[in-house]
Amino acid sequence: MAEKITPRSENYSQWYVDIILNAKLADYSPVKGSMVIRPHGYALWEAIQRNLDDMFKATGHTNAYFPLLIPESFIKKEAEHVEGFSPELAVVTHAGGEELEEPLVIRPTSETIIWSMYKKWIQSYRDLPLLINQWANVLRWEKRTRLFLRTSEFLWQEGHTAHATEKEAREETLRMLNVYKEFAEKWMAIPVLTGVKSPSEKFAGAIDTYAIEAMMQDHKALQAGTSHFLGQNFAKAFDVTFQNDTGSLEYVWATSWGVSTRLVGALIMTHSDDKGLVVPPKLSPVEAVIIPIFRNKNKEEVVGYARKLYDRMKDEFRVKLDADDSNSPGWKFAEWEMLGCPVRIELGPRDMENGKAVLVRRDNGEKEIVDIEAVPARVGELLESIQTTLFQRALENRETHTYDVDSYDRFKAIFDGEGGFIRMPWCGDAECEAAIKEETKATIRLIPFEQPELKGAVCPRCGKPADKIAVYARSY
Amino acid sequence: MAEKITPRSENYSQWYVDIILNAKLADYSPVKGSMVIRPHGYALWEAIQRNLDDMFKATGHTNAYFPLLIPESFIKKEAEHVEGFSPELAVVTHAGGEELEEPLVIRPTSETIIWSMYKKWIQSYRDLPLLINQWANVLRWEKRTRLFLRTSEFLWQEGHTAHATEKEAREETLRMLNVYKEFAEKWMAIPVLTGVKSPSEKFAGAIDTYAIEAMMQDHKALQAGTSHFLGQNFAKAFDVTFQNDTGSLEYVWATSWGVSTRLVGALIMTHSDDKGLVVPPKLSPVEAVIIPIFRNKNKEEVVGYARKLYDRMKDEFRVKLDADDSNSPGWKFAEWEMLGCPVRIELGPRDMENGKAVLVRRDNGEKEIVDIEAVPARVGELLESIQTTLFQRALENRETHTYDVDSYDRFKAIFDGEGGFIRMPWCGDAECEAAIKEETKATIRLIPFEQPELKGAVCPRCGKPADKIAVYARSY
Repeated sequence: MAEKITPRSENYSQWYVDIILNAKLADYSPVKGSMVIRPHGYALWEAIQRNLDDMFKATGHTNAYFPLLIPESFIKKEAEHVEGFSPELAVVTHAGGEELEEPLVIRPTSETIIWSMYKKWIQSYRDLPLLINQWANVLRWEKRTRLFLRTSEFLWQEGHTAHATEKEAREETLRMLNVYKEFAEKWMAIPVLTGVKSPSEKFAGAIDTYAIEAMMQDHKALQAGTSHFLGQNFAKAFDVTFQNDTGSLEYVWATSWGVSTRLVGALIMTHSDDKGLVVPPKLSPVEAVIIPIFRNKNKEEVVGYARKLYDRMKDEFRVKLDADDSNSPGWKFAEWEMLGCPVRIELGPRDMENGKAVLVRRDNGEKEIVDIEAVPARVGELLESIQTTLFQRALENRETHTYDVDSYDRFKAIFDGEGGFIRMPWCGDAECEAAIKEETKATIRLIPFEQPELKGAVCPRCGKPADKIAVYARSY
Repeated sequence: MAEKITPRSENYSQWYVDIILNAKLADYSPVKGSMVIRPHGYALWEAIQRNLDDMFKATGHTNAYFPLLIPESFIKKEAEHVEGFSPELAVVTHAGGEELEEPLVIRPTSETIIWSMYKKWIQSYRDLPLLINQWANVLRWEKRTRLFLRTSEFLWQEGHTAHATEKEAREETLRMLNVYKEFAEKWMAIPVLTGVKSPSEKFAGAIDTYAIEAMMQDHKALQAGTSHFLGQNFAKAFDVTFQNDTGSLEYVWATSWGVSTRLVGALIMTHSDDKGLVVPPKLSPVEAVIIPIFRNKNKEEVVGYARKLYDRMKDEFRVKLDADDSNSPGWKFAEWEMLGCPVRIELGPRDMENGKAVLVRRDNGEKEIVDIEAVPARVGELLESIQTTLFQRALENRETHTYDVDSYDRFKAIFDGEGGFIRMPWCGDAECEAAIKEETKATIRLIPFEQPELKGAVCPRCGKPADKIAVYARSY
């Protein structure tokens, strides 16, 4: 605790770092580009991981584990892939006291090593679909890093599926995109847009990359997850064929999809405030904290009163009793606010006499006094209400800062001001896209699935015909 | 499925590999020394991980994540540590297209990077104890590998705790050793010995290393977990001091402890048989499989009968209905035996008519016919019985092959024969220990906590006085 948190209005980037360091979510490490995820931050990742993993399993996936080190030659087998990842690779040249015959790279992503195994495992249509996920660390060398959002090493999951037909693989790609959307919205309380990336922003080796994109409080976009339709690119690179039900050989169709510890950054930047972290109840390691307020003379009674409540609640809620007497109640209030605990339950001697408790919501600070008997039920209601409120607040932020624009001057004016998501017709030309990025730092975040009818629309920047709306934003 | 499994009596090592490949627990990878953990094997690791993690949390530990890459200079800060690990390091010399100023090693274990962070986090006795665990991959370059038991990269957990006093750190070391013992015995059904390692077998950088040791079916030992009292070695190497409650500075006391994917190997080698894997019910991804036996004409009724049972059981058990009609019942029986599923429930048309079910135990093949209504309760009993039986069987194997020996000729004769655990007085001399290893390939697995009274005992090999019994065995 204790360092001051820079207000968001003053410096949003510094506020973000202050939250992370003060809530002890992460720390800088002595290894350039790598961070340490501290217990409070890791607990958020564990909650994300456990719930997402349940969703993966419910959609038929199983987990596996593939090697960290990949022969350099594997990365080179898919042309776009090597071009995309080469500049970011970390290379092991020596091991066991000797120089290696072939250098090994630390996985930046695992398509190549996994498809080299799929070649062994897939012979017939009976072996398909193969629906495997991996939870792992990956490494992409970065010069400029930002805690949780961009670090050389990060934790993630990567799904890698193999299918008999293009149709099935495309369905899987969208199924997992929707799993991400549902998880972001229902669990993280983060509304997201879905759509396809422009070719210049797609994954190196994919045919199509789909993404979920969220708006942060500063109106910048954050890509929170991606799902790739890989076509037969990796099957061809690794010669993975199967015998179809008529007996002839075909290349296998593929998808891959991933989310990372970046989600923790998204969670912080979507909900937190100048007092600290705000965590959506469904992912909060502690849903409610009970803080007894006592002096030496009445400690035993008040703590006993609190413990009785704790015992009643502990099977139903992730609840914590903070009866430590080395810190004052005021210090504890601030500490649990810093950690983003959704509901605080204060119990003082007067509450005890009256059979009451004070409940305080983290999201808006509202206090209420309720009968002690009614506390568990009321906490349940508050948790639901907080979950909904956080989502609605984030949605409102996005809606208020989303603009339909058909003039490039207006487009530039918005980014000169508060920024936001801009929906604007796009000509489909990568050069025009690059020029807009150069001129405004805004990129196409995605081309949304739902498109208005565009009749005779043009790209406002170049004047060429446009048949699609793209969503532009500055991004993390 | 389908390759033949070599019988244990013929070739135990080949049997072990056959089980792993046939049950699709793991596979060889194109990266020398690394393995791929396939979904069936990873599911066992997930079960181990989830239950151990609960035990760590119940003893006050939290999880965190530290960088994969460690500056080479860190490893060199603790003299014994660098000597122990140097020959096994994999070194990153290039990243992001450039040669690094200082090479980075892939963590072989994380004491050094973690204690470099503890220096930042620990100032006062109020910051202690610090009880952190990490689930991670580590890498120790190996020339000769064996699936699950010895691979260059492996998955593990490593606890790293910091304490104000030697006493507390020593208590923590033994607490976690006991957590491992309890987990091995109650969950994995593997009886283990506990004790301290001889100085020549301890962890590089520890004062004392404690271990749990299990006997495999071939009477060889397998070290299944270790817990180290590190004294102030790493605190001194990284200059980690704290202000004690009288205001003066002291070095912090440390422990570390770990188990790895090796446990999956221990599980296979303790319980499995010539038909395949045998998994203790508490860790089995599927506790019971329901296999309806039908033809085309009665498929609907029989599968309906099976599904009703499945619906009744699914909230209480990890149960699976295998109603796939592309494989015969016989094929499925063999497949689920291969996977080690504890209980098989067969439901045929005649069972349906009579309101019965056939239950088959995986551990001993016993069949029984029970009323369909009684199936859930009976399966519950069988699962408990199988868990106990597996433990008892392993215990009996160990007890039958444990010998109290006071003659070196007898000692050698045992290792020339069936092998086993030999309890024999030890002079305490590392040279004598090394000579025994040279002459018999047996090493001191541990010096057990419980010691008999030794009056005038001598080391049978060298004749020098011995005040302790050591347990010797050949080991994995």
